[in-house]
Amino acid sequence: MQLSFANERVLAVVAHPDDAELLCAGTLARAQADSATIGVCVLTKGDKGQPNRPIKNLPAVRRKETQAAAKLLGAELFFGGFSDGELTDAPAARRRVVEIIRQFRPTLVLAHAAEDYHPDHRAASVLAEAATWFAASRGHRTASAPLTEPAALWFMDTINMSGFAPGFYVDISAHTELKERMLGCHRSQLARADDANFSPLLDLMRLQFRARGAQAGVAAAEAFRIHDAFMRTRAW
Amino acid sequence: MQLSFANERVLAVVAHPDDAELLCAGTLARAQADSATIGVCVLTKGDKGQPNRPIKNLPAVRRKETQAAAKLLGAELFFGGFSDGELTDAPAARRRVVEIIRQFRPTLVLAHAAEDYHPDHRAASVLAEAATWFAASRGHRTASAPLTEPAALWFMDTINMSGFAPGFYVDISAHTELKERMLGCHRSQLARADDANFSPLLDLMRLQFRARGAQAGVAAAEAFRIHDAFMRTRAW
Amino acid sequence: MQLSFANERVLAVVAHPDDAELLCAGTLARAQADSATIGVCVLTKGDKGQPNRPIKNLPAVRRKETQAAAKLLGAELFFGGFSDGELTDAPAARRRVVEIIRQFRPTLVLAHAAEDYHPDHRAASVLAEAATWFAASRGHRTASAPLTEPAALWFMDTINMSGFAPGFYVDISAHTELKERMLGCHRSQLARADDANFSPLLDLMRLQFRARGAQAGVAAAEAFRIHDAFMRTRAW
Amino acid sequence: MQLSFANERVLAVVAHPDDAELLCAGTLARAQADSATIGVCVLTKGDKGQPNRPIKNLPAVRRKETQAAAKLLGAELFFGGFSDGELTDAPAARRRVVEIIRQFRPTLVLAHAAEDYHPDHRAASVLAEAATWFAASRGHRTASAPLTEPAALWFMDTINMSGFAPGFYVDISAHTELKERMLGCHRSQLARADDANFSPLLDLMRLQFRARGAQAGVAAAEAFRIHDAFMRTRAW
Amino acid sequence: MQLSFANERVLAVVAHPDDAELLCAGTLARAQADSATIGVCVLTKGDKGQPNRPIKNLPAVRRKETQAAAKLLGAELFFGGFSDGELTDAPAARRRVVEIIRQFRPTLVLAHAAEDYHPDHRAASVLAEAATWFAASRGHRTASAPLTEPAALWFMDTINMSGFAPGFYVDISAHTELKERMLGCHRSQLARADDANFSPLLDLMRLQFRARGAQAGVAAAEAFRIHDAFMRTRAW
Amino acid sequence: MQLSFANERVLAVVAHPDDAELLCAGTLARAQADSATIGVCVLTKGDKGQPNRPIKNLPAVRRKETQAAAKLLGAELFFGGFSDGELTDAPAARRRVVEIIRQFRPTLVLAHAAEDYHPDHRAASVLAEAATWFAASRGHRTASAPLTEPAALWFMDTINMSGFAPGFYVDISAHTELKERMLGCHRSQLARADDANFSPLLDLMRLQFRARGAQAGVAAAEAFRIHDAFMRTRAW
Repeated sequence: MQLSFANERVLAVVAHPDDAELLCAGTLARAQADSATIGVCVLTKGDKGQPNRPIKNLPAVRRKETQAAAKLLGAELFFGGFSDGELTDAPAARRRVVEIIRQFRPTLVLAHAAEDYHPDHRAASVLAEAATWFAASRGHRTASAPLTEPAALWFMDTINMSGFAPGFYVDISAHTELKERMLGCHRSQLARADDANFSPLLDLMRLQFRARGAQAGVAAAEAFRIHDAFMRTRAW
Repeated sequence: MQLSFANERVLAVVAHPDDAELLCAGTLARAQADSATIGVCVLTKGDKGQPNRPIKNLPAVRRKETQAAAKLLGAELFFGGFSDGELTDAPAARRRVVEIIRQFRPTLVLAHAAEDYHPDHRAASVLAEAATWFAASRGHRTASAPLTEPAALWFMDTINMSGFAPGFYVDISAHTELKERMLGCHRSQLARADDANFSPLLDLMRLQFRARGAQAGVAAAEAFRIHDAFMRTRAW
Repeated sequence: MQLSFANERVLAVVAHPDDAELLCAGTLARAQADSATIGVCVLTKGDKGQPNRPIKNLPAVRRKETQAAAKLLGAELFFGGFSDGELTDAPAARRRVVEIIRQFRPTLVLAHAAEDYHPDHRAASVLAEAATWFAASRGHRTASAPLTEPAALWFMDTINMSGFAPGFYVDISAHTELKERMLGCHRSQLARADDANFSPLLDLMRLQFRARGAQAGVAAAEAFRIHDAFMRTRAW
Repeated sequence: MQLSFANERVLAVVAHPDDAELLCAGTLARAQADSATIGVCVLTKGDKGQPNRPIKNLPAVRRKETQAAAKLLGAELFFGGFSDGELTDAPAARRRVVEIIRQFRPTLVLAHAAEDYHPDHRAASVLAEAATWFAASRGHRTASAPLTEPAALWFMDTINMSGFAPGFYVDISAHTELKERMLGCHRSQLARADDANFSPLLDLMRLQFRARGAQAGVAAAEAFRIHDAFMRTRAW
Repeated sequence: MQLSFANERVLAVVAHPDDAELLCAGTLARAQADSATIGVCVLTKGDKGQPNRPIKNLPAVRRKETQAAAKLLGAELFFGGFSDGELTDAPAARRRVVEIIRQFRPTLVLAHAAEDYHPDHRAASVLAEAATWFAASRGHRTASAPLTEPAALWFMDTINMSGFAPGFYVDISAHTELKERMLGCHRSQLARADDANFSPLLDLMRLQFRARGAQAGVAAAEAFRIHDAFMRTRAW
Repeated sequence: MQLSFANERVLAVVAHPDDAELLCAGTLARAQADSATIGVCVLTKGDKGQPNRPIKNLPAVRRKETQAAAKLLGAELFFGGFSDGELTDAPAARRRVVEIIRQFRPTLVLAHAAEDYHPDHRAASVLAEAATWFAASRGHRTASAPLTEPAALWFMDTINMSGFAPGFYVDISAHTELKERMLGCHRSQLARADDANFSPLLDLMRLQFRARGAQAGVAAAEAFRIHDAFMRTRAW
């Protein structure tokens, strides 16, 4: 079986600058190879992800790292501009995400799973879910025009696969090199490898795409689950 | 088996003016036929549900539509007065719902399921759950006196049945005509049938009560699930 | 709310002679008070339930104990005649249960939950589920005529409540005395109180109906879950 | 998104002659339109599905009906030859299904869900699951050679959608006419419409594909869930 | 099997002054007997838990009761200082809990389950979960230094066991006397026994530890579930 | 936290000769280091696990491999003697496992999860579950005397972690070398590395214990879930 992303506009809505790399970059690369248009929306500035040797101007540094990674992928990039560790499903945040969705006009949104480990991931999950709905509602006014219908929504795997029951797997065997190069752009985070509460990122990512691949009969995979809800589910 | 609503005071707490029609009007009619007293609490003004040809004063129009529907049912009507798309589980909203519950004094509250598709439905679910508890707590002061014990709580089906696992079904075969006439009062919404992101409401409602009926061996049914929690569960 | 059993024919299909007492006797008494007709089908002879001081002719003794208990309840009694610890979903067992169902002609069958602790309980669960279907199938011939439609099916609580998620609770507060007197008929089993791998039965039963009662706001309750499956679910 | 069945060999393993029509014929038609090769394996003879006015030689009649339906689809047809209502996961049945799988050599098997309503559906589910594994095991000898790797496995929706949580939906909007014509071949079963314990089949089928379609934003859909297990899951 | 708490620092984060007694005091006593260091963090002042005959200065009274109970246990005590019935996962509350966690420096945090009955319990659950993460994040500054790694997290049983599926049980048979004496310190709450919406606390607690004990083969037990999430799970 | 296996008698009941290595050998080694007594019961002869270059007398070869692995661990070894791919929960198999359990007299049994991929694993799961119960039942006679109480029961992870939700993790970081040496004894199976439907065993095992370790904050872990059922659950 092959899932075709042709003619789709796929927007990953993630909490932190390196979350798309960890959880869905392979799938975004797959989609792009199918000629889909790709967007990445990073909600926080990643301003609290300091390595042991603190970086001045960390938000600016992470912005550049994120731009470098998005460039490798050829993705349009959006920044939510929220503070790390403080993301919540509040009216202003909803409006911001609704407006980003209206600018990019996705047909498919990839969002964090509600069961992921980080409070920002969970807030991003709720925000993405709400915003895909409101983006198509005329009553909710933002600068851009409403969509004519809500995007489909998929929830991404959790970090480390903890507590996530995959609904299906996307084969990313041909795209792991790009995924790894994208992660390589996030030097400020790779510098945290000696940080006791922070896993070496590349090891973490490789273990996950190989384990998901082993579960699904391929060299590397990413796991997802559809959001089975009114107007957010699409038959394939 | 027959579930008797005799002597009950049943309050449906819904997010939007037409949600009671879609999800529980048949059961409310059944309860009333058992001589229960019926209340409907509509939390938002429905002010963002504009049809393609916008209606001036939409909140006032929807209020009248809601009153007409409640009158058909013989239900006491309460309005939360919140803005469409902005419902949250905040202190003021909790106090408002607690006060409404204390005015009506229900023995059974019907609430949206936490897994329903609309952010307002989910907020209404959380609010109704919290308010049934606080309504019976002397420490929480509002204009009306506290209840002597919390009402039982049932969660209603989701729109389109997506992701809802029914705990039980209520036979509404004798009440579909009233349910349809009630929905017919919401003309502003029926006018949205040509709206790309809006299903023709009557078709949606009929498909659902027939499908739930087919699952439960009757012509038409509505599905519910008890809230299995301390002081909110009642043996039958 | 009150669940009325009027006009129903309720058949409990249990594995061992004292299982109906432990898991559903209060509900059967409730149903009978509603003028329902009650049947109990005990699938095994209970021939391996020996107390420390072995009883000769244990199957005959347990048969009499079961008859005494059923008499207290006014229930029609059926025996499957299978050996304790050897119940399986095999063709002969299916035919036996189909025939018993056709003789009693229930509208509601109470069956063990598939997650209960004893292999016989699980086999009885599968058998009762299959037999409710086949009893209404003309193609499956036994001595008695097929039913015109399958009975509804409820799964009973597990022994000790382990791993069972109640769908609803039946108030048996007015029937605990009868339930206890029925259990009292099973003297061969009460004699096992000094048996290391056997709980004192009465304590076990009381703890369970009180805990289920406490969860559901009454003095005593029994918990059930509907079987949500084609033709076996009934709207109330 | 579109799921492509190109180059696949899809085998539906169903319990009764009309189950493929009810649960997966639209998907099989979709797959064929993608140039996949289609097989249908009907495990029982359907010999107990007698209408009110009994048909002599019912197995032969149903065999012809099944062949007519398969011909409409252009599917290769396999018969398990088991008796209706007596299907079990026994060694001989496993060997039979292994041999059929080795003859057709599927890359994808569609099987009943373990939670479906009919004991035969559940036995067929277990058999198909076991046989997809053993068909690729050299140690299990049958007339045909083992596969080089097990087929992927999807579980189909239940009859009436009861208790089934879809993992994904296949759009069959362009194939409902064929699905209906295929069902129309099963005249012996359509004649059961006046049978109290038998739903009018066409109504049942239409209600289901429309409801699943409504849940997934299309006119008609069929729902499935992957079997997430070692060597039976395939990334797409 | 025995779970050893040796060398652990265990912090119970609870909503109300008597919640630790009801849900985890036996386990805390067990841990202390293993020479673990024990902390209790009570998030609200319990200011709305008025008995029928109102108590002046209730927060001060409950503070003393809580101190008396903690003293029996030998636990370090922390107060969140929030108002009863108004606990939410807001930035200030997160910072407060992060700071408490950094002061006590737990290796294991016990938190309310997300499915518990009281809105404060659910808010406390979310807060404890978030704070265990942020307490180890250098980017989140509070008065005390960040932890070097997040504490493990366990969710406690719900009040009355409703809707909680235990992951494991802790044997507290040797500690029920202490648990009961600790509860006995909360005289203001025991005085609520004649309050219609308030269970007699001691009965409630005993029924629960006996029922959990019966499920786990001991005289008394408390049930828990690990939080299976990145950096919050610890192998034993 | 540390889980102590001191004074336990731990019996792993597995389907095939190398299953204990893959799923629980690290935990058995941990238990033994705690001075527990270890047993391994291998139910089938592994007679269908032929590598590409077939081995004569495969059952005898695998028996020796299994004995070598058990010797490394210092485990008492039991053989069920059943044929690979044909294990079922039948009376004779139950009696065999009951007798093995009565010979070893375990306090803890490790069994396959019911959701594992291989039909033999599932049959072994059901058999182990039933036999732990019947082993303590005087009514079920075999050569050895009944146990005085049933052993506790844990379900092991699935092969490849597919579909398994861990209840807890055991740290086996200090025991991976032994686990690998034990697997190394199964040369007949390691020779299957070039077999298309067979994963290289060592890679599979390492990926799994590292991924489970990463989820639980240690270098290597094995995952389990308690069997939460009457008399088979033990508080720790």
